[in-house]
Amino acid sequence: MSVSVQENQTKLDSFKAYVRKMKQYEEAIALIYWDMRTGAPKKGIETRSEVVGELSTEVFRMSTSDEMGAYLDYFIQPEQLDQLDSISRKMVLECKKEYDRSKKIPAEKYQAYVVLTSQAESMWEEAKHKSDWAMFQPYLEKIVATTKEFIELWGYEGNKYNTLLDMYEPGMTVDKLDQVFGALRDKVVPLLQRIQASPNQPDRAFLNQQFEISKQKQFSLSILKQMQYDFEAGRLDETVHPFATALNPGDVRITTRYLPNDITSALFGTIHEGGHALYEQNISKDLVGTNLCTGTSMGIHESQSRFWENVIGRSKAFWNRYYGELQSIFAGQIDDVDVDTFYRAINHIHPSLIRIEADELTYNFHIMIRYELEKGLINGTIEVADLPQAWNAKYEEYLGVVPSNDGEGVLQDVHWSGGAFGYFPSYSLGNMYAAQFNNTLRKELPNFDELVEAGNLVPIKEWLSDKIYQYGKLLTPNEIVKQVTGEELNPDYLVQYLEEKYKAVYGI
Amino acid sequence: MSVSVQENQTKLDSFKAYVRKMKQYEEAIALIYWDMRTGAPKKGIETRSEVVGELSTEVFRMSTSDEMGAYLDYFIQPEQLDQLDSISRKMVLECKKEYDRSKKIPAEKYQAYVVLTSQAESMWEEAKHKSDWAMFQPYLEKIVATTKEFIELWGYEGNKYNTLLDMYEPGMTVDKLDQVFGALRDKVVPLLQRIQASPNQPDRAFLNQQFEISKQKQFSLSILKQMQYDFEAGRLDETVHPFATALNPGDVRITTRYLPNDITSALFGTIHEGGHALYEQNISKDLVGTNLCTGTSMGIHESQSRFWENVIGRSKAFWNRYYGELQSIFAGQIDDVDVDTFYRAINHIHPSLIRIEADELTYNFHIMIRYELEKGLINGTIEVADLPQAWNAKYEEYLGVVPSNDGEGVLQDVHWSGGAFGYFPSYSLGNMYAAQFNNTLRKELPNFDELVEAGNLVPIKEWLSDKIYQYGKLLTPNEIVKQVTGEELNPDYLVQYLEEKYKAVYGI
Repeated sequence: MSVSVQENQTKLDSFKAYVRKMKQYEEAIALIYWDMRTGAPKKGIETRSEVVGELSTEVFRMSTSDEMGAYLDYFIQPEQLDQLDSISRKMVLECKKEYDRSKKIPAEKYQAYVVLTSQAESMWEEAKHKSDWAMFQPYLEKIVATTKEFIELWGYEGNKYNTLLDMYEPGMTVDKLDQVFGALRDKVVPLLQRIQASPNQPDRAFLNQQFEISKQKQFSLSILKQMQYDFEAGRLDETVHPFATALNPGDVRITTRYLPNDITSALFGTIHEGGHALYEQNISKDLVGTNLCTGTSMGIHESQSRFWENVIGRSKAFWNRYYGELQSIFAGQIDDVDVDTFYRAINHIHPSLIRIEADELTYNFHIMIRYELEKGLINGTIEVADLPQAWNAKYEEYLGVVPSNDGEGVLQDVHWSGGAFGYFPSYSLGNMYAAQFNNTLRKELPNFDELVEAGNLVPIKEWLSDKIYQYGKLLTPNEIVKQVTGEELNPDYLVQYLEEKYKAVYGI
Repeated sequence: MSVSVQENQTKLDSFKAYVRKMKQYEEAIALIYWDMRTGAPKKGIETRSEVVGELSTEVFRMSTSDEMGAYLDYFIQPEQLDQLDSISRKMVLECKKEYDRSKKIPAEKYQAYVVLTSQAESMWEEAKHKSDWAMFQPYLEKIVATTKEFIELWGYEGNKYNTLLDMYEPGMTVDKLDQVFGALRDKVVPLLQRIQASPNQPDRAFLNQQFEISKQKQFSLSILKQMQYDFEAGRLDETVHPFATALNPGDVRITTRYLPNDITSALFGTIHEGGHALYEQNISKDLVGTNLCTGTSMGIHESQSRFWENVIGRSKAFWNRYYGELQSIFAGQIDDVDVDTFYRAINHIHPSLIRIEADELTYNFHIMIRYELEKGLINGTIEVADLPQAWNAKYEEYLGVVPSNDGEGVLQDVHWSGGAFGYFPSYSLGNMYAAQFNNTLRKELPNFDELVEAGNLVPIKEWLSDKIYQYGKLLTPNEIVKQVTGEELNPDYLVQYLEEKYKAVYGI
């Protein structure tokens, strides 16, 4: 018996070393991508891409190897699985999920798909630039067809789209999403109408001036420090498209973009990426080197970027504390703008065409539109050829605006060119989770607003670390939400948050 | 027969793909090191080091695998080798050399040596800081003993030290080095005496002032551009210890260090690293992805950094062209210093204790000292315990200066703590090769000085690319020198260069 225990331990150690090696390769790949996006010289990119290809091939090979298969066959047996500690058990389950998913697609089909999406991304870029849907349509048709084929191979329960949702938000289903998006829409549509009808529209004229970039940088760094972003475990760089990347919890890097004539872009972009980064910096050290050492889902990740960006960063309490600092950094530029005016300006609600520029209320409509279109494509109720018209019709219906061309319409996002169907809902899930966590947090830290007004964000960051961040992927999104808030995802908290906040902002 | 040709080709392709994969891993490792030295957050270093360890282990495994062994056994047969194109043939020979070298050391002995040198490097750092030789001595004793043991396993021809020299300068021997260093010493010692006795010592007082770092940076960038350093295939960053690293010929990065009170440090450091970089940027595209895609030896590499730094960067013609630019960038600071005064100041010859701060003449004595000590250690004529005294005696003999403590004496360099015996001679070989290439170059481009004075460095860079850079490791150092200059390494050219230059500078 004790021999068998020892054998098991040896086997488990070797499984974990195997996974650790995969993670190490992934860390190298992530660093190469970071470098490519932050300043790698362009003439080295072609050779560097081959390096990424080689390392990625090796990770894929390891994740689907006979060696991995043998580990999984062994540890997935209930009598083995039950004996494992919680981390090892979840590691096995995650590897098994990925293994099965990969094994079901014939290698040559997957290879062809990688080539297809790579070509489609280049084509999309040009098509968007030229506003030329016809250029992109044949590629998207092939991508949709292949995705449907893959779903048949992967299998599905209920709606075919569930299989795609599950890739980004484990456990999420069309039934659930239809319900929460429906509830959200029913409440937010009338709120938006009242906001638009309000005579109390914010004054935003003062935002339209030049803000020196070195000063924007100074303020961004100061806010990140206040948020408890750990600069000994990260760094801030500049890129055209801001992002956060976690190499390991001791090295979580973010980027931002400074626009000379728009102070809000870098400011809220930095806080947003800082929120993603706080999550990754505070994952338990016990998970380092495992496949659980990352955020549990795209939706929960986005809840943290949006919690910090919107719930905190666009709150009155936050600006009661930091507006003076902003005024003194930009001395002479916003001296005669009071904090209330500033607060209302950065919380301006305005239906628009472009998702990434949308406010925190109308953003959800941009997502619902994409969700409904994706669902239709995958279930065959919408044809790719009909997408531009369907897109425009939905924009008119939900937001009352119509794109003047496909570049600012159906071609605006990169996601579909890469085959990332099922991803978009994460953004709205993030908003909903953020509001739901916020509701609990305020009960458990009743002096929340005072803490923010005092510039003491430490207890908030510690609460989030304790309740969410430390677990990484050890808990599912649903387990996290239930454990923290006592209930499953509930869109009412977002509705309540938006109503309270925007009734005040618009004096409704 | 045609089947066999095809089989050979397939085998060769697969051998080359195998080598390419090793190179790709090495490129990832090199990027990680670059990142660690230029700004990786410190809390991520521990995990990142494990990533490097994993990737390095894989490269070592591949270089000594049975698969590699089988390729080499096959292609090393004369009837195969003779049929190969020159690149493939040299690839096989290089892999074979590394394979044999690695295979001769038992894995556990090598592992113990890696641990030893890693500990020794930490210990050296502390010992140097504290000037405490006794702390370091036992580590160095073990390193020397292990190195001697390895030499017995590797084998040697003639002097045991030859095996170490060959690692950095293939084909170099003690006989040859004794001869060239002897010739150099015989001529340079009297020259140094005359320089020191000259009443015409350069005025250096004006160098002792504050030079704004942003302006130093501006000038460094400008000079790199003039040198034809390709910024689309590289970048310049700042580190405490400047270095150049070639990830691939399209991505060759350099770093420099700006000191507020010393304009020469960044200036000549940048040109030096720029010289290393030009070499790597201009290696033939045909060698990308092979083990020949790097400089052929440490000595030839150093010849290029030193050619650009000293032969060009400290020449009168160069400053006739660029001194005006320097004056205008530092307007008001060196207005009343004429170009001749500046030129003499940056060519000040002065025996000193610290190698890395030495001028281009006395530098060679620092190297001869280390070479003689290393040779003695390896051949058992000097004991580690006697090193400090031997060091001080040689400094007094060669340079007329004596360290006041071991920190600025025997402990000053990191090399021995890493076991890098045989490396130091490369620096002086670089000086000798540079002068020898310079002699040929001036014959083939008789308007050399006019080109430099006109700021037209393009033909010089093209000559060097054509004659040296493009070949990478395809030719040995000796083949390069003979092909370019028509003769083997000859120290007379350095003597002649130093005599001509410094007789003028010192009005001898």
